[in-house]
Amino acid sequence: MIELANKIQSGDRRAISKALTLIESSKSDHRQYALKLLEMLQDDHLAVRLGVSGVPGVGKSTFIESLGLQLISEGKSVAVLSVDPSSAITGGSILGDKTRMEMLSRSTSAYIRPSPAGGNLGGVARRTRESIAILEAAEFDVIIVETVGVGQSETVVAGMTDLFLLLLLPGGGDELQGIKRGIMELADIIVVNKADGERIPDANRAVSEYRLALSLMQRRIQEWETPVLTCSARDGTGIQEVSSVIETYIDLVSTSGYLQSLRASQRVLWFSQELDSALAQLLRENPELVKEREDLEKHVHDKNISPVSASAQLITSFLNQRK
Amino acid sequence: MIELANKIQSGDRRAISKALTLIESSKSDHRQYALKLLEMLQDDHLAVRLGVSGVPGVGKSTFIESLGLQLISEGKSVAVLSVDPSSAITGGSILGDKTRMEMLSRSTSAYIRPSPAGGNLGGVARRTRESIAILEAAEFDVIIVETVGVGQSETVVAGMTDLFLLLLLPGGGDELQGIKRGIMELADIIVVNKADGERIPDANRAVSEYRLALSLMQRRIQEWETPVLTCSARDGTGIQEVSSVIETYIDLVSTSGYLQSLRASQRVLWFSQELDSALAQLLRENPELVKEREDLEKHVHDKNISPVSASAQLITSFLNQRK
Repeated sequence: MIELANKIQSGDRRAISKALTLIESSKSDHRQYALKLLEMLQDDHLAVRLGVSGVPGVGKSTFIESLGLQLISEGKSVAVLSVDPSSAITGGSILGDKTRMEMLSRSTSAYIRPSPAGGNLGGVARRTRESIAILEAAEFDVIIVETVGVGQSETVVAGMTDLFLLLLLPGGGDELQGIKRGIMELADIIVVNKADGERIPDANRAVSEYRLALSLMQRRIQEWETPVLTCSARDGTGIQEVSSVIETYIDLVSTSGYLQSLRASQRVLWFSQELDSALAQLLRENPELVKEREDLEKHVHDKNISPVSASAQLITSFLNQRK
Repeated sequence: MIELANKIQSGDRRAISKALTLIESSKSDHRQYALKLLEMLQDDHLAVRLGVSGVPGVGKSTFIESLGLQLISEGKSVAVLSVDPSSAITGGSILGDKTRMEMLSRSTSAYIRPSPAGGNLGGVARRTRESIAILEAAEFDVIIVETVGVGQSETVVAGMTDLFLLLLLPGGGDELQGIKRGIMELADIIVVNKADGERIPDANRAVSEYRLALSLMQRRIQEWETPVLTCSARDGTGIQEVSSVIETYIDLVSTSGYLQSLRASQRVLWFSQELDSALAQLLRENPELVKEREDLEKHVHDKNISPVSASAQLITSFLNQRK
């Protein structure tokens, strides 16, 4: 284990992949091992943790590839994690199987980890947070956490990153409506992608509209007015400016102490959520309760007992075990 | 308590309000009382549980008021619950304070319960589910659960209702993009609101587009092709058709047995989520652990211990208490 930890800290790709696989595993011995590893890897390297979100079709992969290559050209190393909670109904991956970020994946300064299939949002959050810790220990300069814009995972990702970048399309006024408001509130940087060719006027109009909408929202950091940029990830235009704005933001929040206090409160949130997950897992995986749980589930299904009573009964059994 | 339960079953409004207040309370004795009440009120009356969602501005209140009055004119009683998880950042209510559903609230066949302020989505889910159980025991014919379209609460509401109605605006093609796909997948009925005056052509075009989009998605129930209707809640046009489609849906799923199996699996889901919530609450409210938890939180905040280790330590203390 010490060897694995050392290898991770020296940036060994195979060791990193092995650690992330351990984190994604639901086997209890893997879990124990992963927890010890996380404990050993606590260190003081601070990567820039960047959340990137946007609806399907906005060009997230192309943008991340383009931004990643830009960061590498500036001498930085980049890791990319995907957060992809499965579709509630079909259970399928939203991302599909298409090959993504080919150019970036060939760079020796990059590491790309696709999202593991399946899992609920709570499980995804837990894994992502721990994976970020591993990648930070591996001393990447920038960790990009990509999330599929289905509205549920943005808040989770914003709760574990230093800044949140929202990609938008050049498009009509509907963009300003409804669902995206809550997500716009979370954004530290907004980038209108696909600002190329005949879409440039649309993109510029979208920028004005987003700026107007943002001016009506509350700022999270008094000194930071959420910038709205345009880029064409396909053509590579505007990407350098995005990189530069990210740097400006990080400089600001590092100097003001905001970043340190943000990270501290994110650790406290992690503690609280880990308590809930770990406790739930202990009960769920308790071998002596499997039979009772299955019986109760059947009775709940058949309406012989209420869900609330069944839950109280199983919890009592769980706690009495220890007596 | 038996008196309260009896009053609820006879539809006494004050008793219902009292029960819902108990459910919303976080005090542990209120909680115990609420649980016992829920247990006593298990009965076989099946209300139609209707989830209604849509982005802010789509006219949810007006629609629910109009549909509610329509249902009442058909001889039914109607209860309305709001699900309004607070905005992540501002903590404020999305709905605001405007007076809502004035006409409906004056009807003796209606009961409207606004959303309690604050709380995370898990807490909201727990309260809403239990409130539905109370309202069902009070023998309302239709329980409408309104959710604010921010993308996070739809899945939760869809997991506790019989059918999910999505309200949309007549508008451009952007509606079809991205975020709403996941929510469209959840919809059993889609209604384009504000189909009045010069917006009628837009509304009709939107209907065609949504039908096309739906034809590319997987059906949840083989026999049910999600209908796309238009209405003007303001003018009252199309509302009768919505009510009629709801009835057709309920007839179909009751006859086929789908409704019974849906409710059974919703009860099992409730059991599982209640286990997690109740266990987490037991730990959180454990008086002997308050001090240790605060200390650990401080150490986590100051980076003296990792969130994962701190969690493991507190859970060990919790379980050892019982020895």
